[in-house]
Amino acid sequence: MRIDVLSLFPPMFEGVFGESILKKAQEKKAVELNVINFRDFSPNRHNNVDDYPYGGGAGMVLKPEPIFEAIDHVTTSKASSPRIVLMCPQGERFTQRKAEELAKEEHLVFICGHYEGYDERIREHLVTDEISIGDFVLTGGELGAMVVIDSVVRLLPEVLGNEESSVKDSFSSGLLEHPHYTRPAEYKGMKVPSVLISGNHAHIEEWREKESLKRTWQRRPDLLTSYPLTDQHKKWIKEWEKDKNMLE
Amino acid sequence: MRIDVLSLFPPMFEGVFGESILKKAQEKKAVELNVINFRDFSPNRHNNVDDYPYGGGAGMVLKPEPIFEAIDHVTTSKASSPRIVLMCPQGERFTQRKAEELAKEEHLVFICGHYEGYDERIREHLVTDEISIGDFVLTGGELGAMVVIDSVVRLLPEVLGNEESSVKDSFSSGLLEHPHYTRPAEYKGMKVPSVLISGNHAHIEEWREKESLKRTWQRRPDLLTSYPLTDQHKKWIKEWEKDKNMLE
Repeated sequence: MRIDVLSLFPPMFEGVFGESILKKAQEKKAVELNVINFRDFSPNRHNNVDDYPYGGGAGMVLKPEPIFEAIDHVTTSKASSPRIVLMCPQGERFTQRKAEELAKEEHLVFICGHYEGYDERIREHLVTDEISIGDFVLTGGELGAMVVIDSVVRLLPEVLGNEESSVKDSFSSGLLEHPHYTRPAEYKGMKVPSVLISGNHAHIEEWREKESLKRTWQRRPDLLTSYPLTDQHKKWIKEWEKDKNMLE
Repeated sequence: MRIDVLSLFPPMFEGVFGESILKKAQEKKAVELNVINFRDFSPNRHNNVDDYPYGGGAGMVLKPEPIFEAIDHVTTSKASSPRIVLMCPQGERFTQRKAEELAKEEHLVFICGHYEGYDERIREHLVTDEISIGDFVLTGGELGAMVVIDSVVRLLPEVLGNEESSVKDSFSSGLLEHPHYTRPAEYKGMKVPSVLISGNHAHIEEWREKESLKRTWQRRPDLLTSYPLTDQHKKWIKEWEKDKNMLE
């Protein structure tokens, strides 16, 4: 997979692209990551990339030319047309399903604005996807692009080692994870639950299943509406609901 | 404000902390950003920070000692107790409201795990907040911490210049932003809407209000349930609904 990022702050990406899974993925040639400063495609000698909005008002607007031409530059001589993703607060909310969809592509391009608006012609005639990572205000699209890129690249074949893969699989069970404990068995008076040290694997499995369900019921009941609950699950939930009602 | 980040990959933060608003905020002494490698607080000479899970199973678990001791280290000699934020998929969903809440604190600490689980005693006895930035799988807590830190720091007084502030304000109007256009008036045959070049400010204002409402109605109808719609707004929405029904 090839990924091109258009940004006015290329050094922002250095730390994240140079460590951990994204570093390994590049070393394994699973992905090629390029960051392009679209200021290099400014139409004038002052290197402007933004200008005042038509119709007046505060704030600056990113001009169409530098972004259209930077996209031309990264798509030239490519047979297939890339997905062109605009990071913006008005975009579709990013989810794991979207990451899986993007992971099937050969070429992704991310456009990162920086507190200015985008000229609407970019949105209308150039981009294929608009993505937001959530309802919060960030300084620019860069952090959102890094989030999307990390979640997409780790889905590519051969990127993850066995250890990370197994953890990923447990996440997609449909429930939140049960609590984990490791050594020491006692630390500053805080002990590991005795069942986990019992050696009784049936008890351990039941404890984990119950804790996983309980955590999901407490924190993310929305996930349970699509989860195939067993009779035992329903019985546990009934008990927790009774306890909760008694406390209220 | 002081922010300490506990991570096994400190270089990941260099690009993001060294550019743009976060760089400026540090120069203005509005925030002090420290990244601590909690491997330095390992209890053994191999510098281990993780170990096998009690009860068996795949994946490693982050040990309690390095994280408890790193937190001790960053909180020593501080009069007030910090908010200690664990970045994890099971946490509360991050929102702008949470950013505003955290922006009032004097000291924040972020704990970033890296695909392993956390020993439950960290969650139970140490952290004050658990935060997730969304329903997608990331390699570690680092990107989430950067997202939270960017959105919090830009709310601190004196961090934003006038230009960025005004854009922030327009976001919090309750509707998505209307389209923006800047020069050139025509680019590759794509023209700016004539109303924006008309000079008629009443028409421009009406066009913007209508486009802002339309975009919100199309993309984020959930925002409209709490928005004080005028009679004119309701009339416009009725027209769009009629058009939509005719197309179906």
